Amino acid sequence: MPSYTNLDALPSFARLRSARPVSLRAVLDSDRVRRCRCALGAGLEYIYAAMDVDDEILSALRGLADEAECVEKFRALASGAIMNTGEKRMVLHHIARGEPAGQVVREGRDFHAFYEGERERIASFARDVHSGRIAGHADRKFSTVVQVGIGGSDLGPRAMYLALENQAKRTGRARMDAKFISNVDPDDANAVLDSVEAESTLFILVSKSGTTQETLANEAFVKARLRKAGLDPARHMIAVTSETSPLAKNPGYLASFYIDDYIGGRYSTSSAVGGAVLSLAFGPETFAEFLDGARETDLRALERDATRNAALLDALLGVFERNVRGRPASAVLPYEQALSRFPAHLQQLDMESNGKSVNRSGEPVSYATGPVIFGEPGTNGQHSFYQLLHQGTDVIPLQFIGFRSNQTAVDMEFEGATSRRMLNANLSAQIAAFALGKDDPDPNRRFAGERPSSLIVGDSLGPRELGALLAHYENKVMFQGFLWNLNSFDQEGVQLGKVLAKNVLSGKPVDGALEAFARAAGAR
Amino acid sequence: MPSYTNLDALPSFARLRSARPVSLRAVLDSDRVRRCRCALGAGLEYIYAAMDVDDEILSALRGLADEAECVEKFRALASGAIMNTGEKRMVLHHIARGEPAGQVVREGRDFHAFYEGERERIASFARDVHSGRIAGHADRKFSTVVQVGIGGSDLGPRAMYLALENQAKRTGRARMDAKFISNVDPDDANAVLDSVEAESTLFILVSKSGTTQETLANEAFVKARLRKAGLDPARHMIAVTSETSPLAKNPGYLASFYIDDYIGGRYSTSSAVGGAVLSLAFGPETFAEFLDGARETDLRALERDATRNAALLDALLGVFERNVRGRPASAVLPYEQALSRFPAHLQQLDMESNGKSVNRSGEPVSYATGPVIFGEPGTNGQHSFYQLLHQGTDVIPLQFIGFRSNQTAVDMEFEGATSRRMLNANLSAQIAAFALGKDDPDPNRRFAGERPSSLIVGDSLGPRELGALLAHYENKVMFQGFLWNLNSFDQEGVQLGKVLAKNVLSGKPVDGALEAFARAAGAR
Repeated sequence: MPSYTNLDALPSFARLRSARPVSLRAVLDSDRVRRCRCALGAGLEYIYAAMDVDDEILSALRGLADEAECVEKFRALASGAIMNTGEKRMVLHHIARGEPAGQVVREGRDFHAFYEGERERIASFARDVHSGRIAGHADRKFSTVVQVGIGGSDLGPRAMYLALENQAKRTGRARMDAKFISNVDPDDANAVLDSVEAESTLFILVSKSGTTQETLANEAFVKARLRKAGLDPARHMIAVTSETSPLAKNPGYLASFYIDDYIGGRYSTSSAVGGAVLSLAFGPETFAEFLDGARETDLRALERDATRNAALLDALLGVFERNVRGRPASAVLPYEQALSRFPAHLQQLDMESNGKSVNRSGEPVSYATGPVIFGEPGTNGQHSFYQLLHQGTDVIPLQFIGFRSNQTAVDMEFEGATSRRMLNANLSAQIAAFALGKDDPDPNRRFAGERPSSLIVGDSLGPRELGALLAHYENKVMFQGFLWNLNSFDQEGVQLGKVLAKNVLSGKPVDGALEAFARAAGAR
Repeated sequence: MPSYTNLDALPSFARLRSARPVSLRAVLDSDRVRRCRCALGAGLEYIYAAMDVDDEILSALRGLADEAECVEKFRALASGAIMNTGEKRMVLHHIARGEPAGQVVREGRDFHAFYEGERERIASFARDVHSGRIAGHADRKFSTVVQVGIGGSDLGPRAMYLALENQAKRTGRARMDAKFISNVDPDDANAVLDSVEAESTLFILVSKSGTTQETLANEAFVKARLRKAGLDPARHMIAVTSETSPLAKNPGYLASFYIDDYIGGRYSTSSAVGGAVLSLAFGPETFAEFLDGARETDLRALERDATRNAALLDALLGVFERNVRGRPASAVLPYEQALSRFPAHLQQLDMESNGKSVNRSGEPVSYATGPVIFGEPGTNGQHSFYQLLHQGTDVIPLQFIGFRSNQTAVDMEFEGATSRRMLNANLSAQIAAFALGKDDPDPNRRFAGERPSSLIVGDSLGPRELGALLAHYENKVMFQGFLWNLNSFDQEGVQLGKVLAKNVLSGKPVDGALEAFARAAGAR
């Protein structure tokens, strides 16, 4: 049984805090770029040469990982330990794609068999939709799928869909267009519904509890629209929910696929929550490959030597920046337009998991936990917020993501280079500019450099690589939770607002200030 | 002539730092919500009741504004002073929508007349496109417009287009669909080009200098695609550029519209950069209304009493949070799906303007300047990163934006409330939850509260309100630059990366580490 200790009580943390700072200008050379890298999974590499660490710091970080028993805790988690201590639940998103610890997790049922079974049911349903065997009420083949869900039922699946859309079109795997309705703002649902043809659209209602306010309101919206078009909603809608929810085994849906309480919303892309929409959009084979990439990456996260375990190393370097160097935020910068919404997914994954002030035993911690996560694709971001990243008063550690080849087949020569080469020349130039800076007689053009970054790089972005990326960040966030001694798997911080919103809607008396704000916003 | 002093040398700054902290739990009540508000322009209100300030702090902030001569500097700027000291340029984005200081700005030409003239040329061109008098090479009426540009030529116009799309459709003002190509990643251009019909598409090439690498590469891409479709690019493309650029008066374009060096990219939405695409998409009347809303808001920014000048007050409160309370980041949270990309525009506007370490005279400053800006629409964000905002170890000041009515006509009753009411009940509930918190025997469910936020609220989001919002933030950022004693109008921090990227592409010898990164990314 691993033991649970706060970060600042681990012996190596003091060592880390007393380590001398490292100057990137002094140490960064081509040899370091060749040496400081680590396989991440699915052919991707994690390169940390431009992080401000040396052997002494890396050795202290390795010590930290051992003392926090990070890998043991991952094994325990993947073997069915109650790691979501607040809600007293197992944490099984890895099991949806395999059993990394080699342990069958059982509690009445074999969970891997359950998730696999749902995946196969979805695959078979998707094939029937693609063949036209299952069609809409007006006997029209389904050509569009619309996911109705919010938070983890939206951000991860949407980011993954966008990440693979181009590639699927090129490889002939694109089967259906996918769209997403999430916000309770009726303008969102209206705009999406106006852009689809009801007769050929299949809706996926995603809510684990079956009680998510926004999602149920949007479901009512969609159903009214279907009825207005003379279509029976039960012929145009499937549900992804838990077996105990009011949506389960409900004749109001064409089919229902199941998840359970052991996979949290932000970790649910590998379950039916991501599986239904991705299998319908790109075929079940694509989703299976995605899970393969994630599974391979999970296995690498069991490696005990942190310098050979990319997720653990990334987690340790993040904790170093946050708790030793005092960095408040971290930016994710994919040089790949297809990853345009990947930072939004990571924002939820990271900030909802580790944005906490009490440890897993409920005691306040006296160190900083999860940072603010933000990002936009490069080179767009270069023309936007990079000014602050280069010359602002706070140093923000960066994580670049890049691929050597395009997803689509068409590229162009322009002034002797392809667009892809221009993109990646910018990517590498930025890493060097942030690390090395540049002196100038004009102080306005001076770059201090010493701004750390890491790079995840691969050949090209397909389902396998995407699965690896997703799992890498899930595992990084998990390891950081272990280091900070948090429960990364609940989200009690989102409850209070929900309760107060219900009170406003119900019309019962509320606090005077809330009443006044509700009036200002027209909610009362 | 106003004088220029660093923030920490202003007498009121010391007063501000020694002011007692304010407890929101102690002071926030309905009376405060009614009292602490200020008209912003176009019917919008700025409510700062949930900011952690009292009369003493507000008085010190007023003092700070007076000592920094914020309003005088705005007057000077709007009268043509060289406020972009680095590049020795005037700063005239306000002049594109009026002359708030009542001063005609001249330098060879009357600038307001120049910007107005371009706006009228665009209006007339747009009318000819809408009537079909100007059509494509194959004599097909243009139904889609694609803006090709990056940074300020993309983020602002795109955010504004998305903000008005629904409303324009409802009010019958939608004339053309608009799309945007920005990233040099060829997968971006490919995806957009695959989604349009070349025969009926008009492209707008936007580059002030006419030398933006990404935009020229994408232009080549677009032209090749047009030629492949048998169409003459000169019949399908207009340019927005400066009169001295290689794109100006170029027979390769159907028409050219002009901007100049006195309006920076991130401030250019009010110029032809935003004007062409918005006038084509929604008609010239919509763009004129948008400018009206901005103009009204500019006039309000001349008010000397900070508590009656929303942009100045917002700026002061932001400086208080950043430099007295030590907050590293700030989140913008629009409860309006149409504003989905507004935070991305603000990210550029704010972080590129004030993410700087030297003052306008080139001396290093010893205080924090621009914070990290991020945000997503509510309620989506509630199901994502709000956990950290409620319970994380750093306090992040928040800015909510909301509207009492929908843009689209359709709303639904669900469980006794419309979706819009649910949206706004959530908005008001969040403000109260952040400020007031909630105690609980379970520490995991404890909310410390005392997390400050402000609210911008209005009836419904149309062109006038959108113009006001845009101008409010431009003016807020300008005032913060005055308070921090920065030049908010250059962006030297983006240059180094560009130069290094060119070196990588040209094949000339570069630093060893850069060479190694370029190889890893496949750029060499």
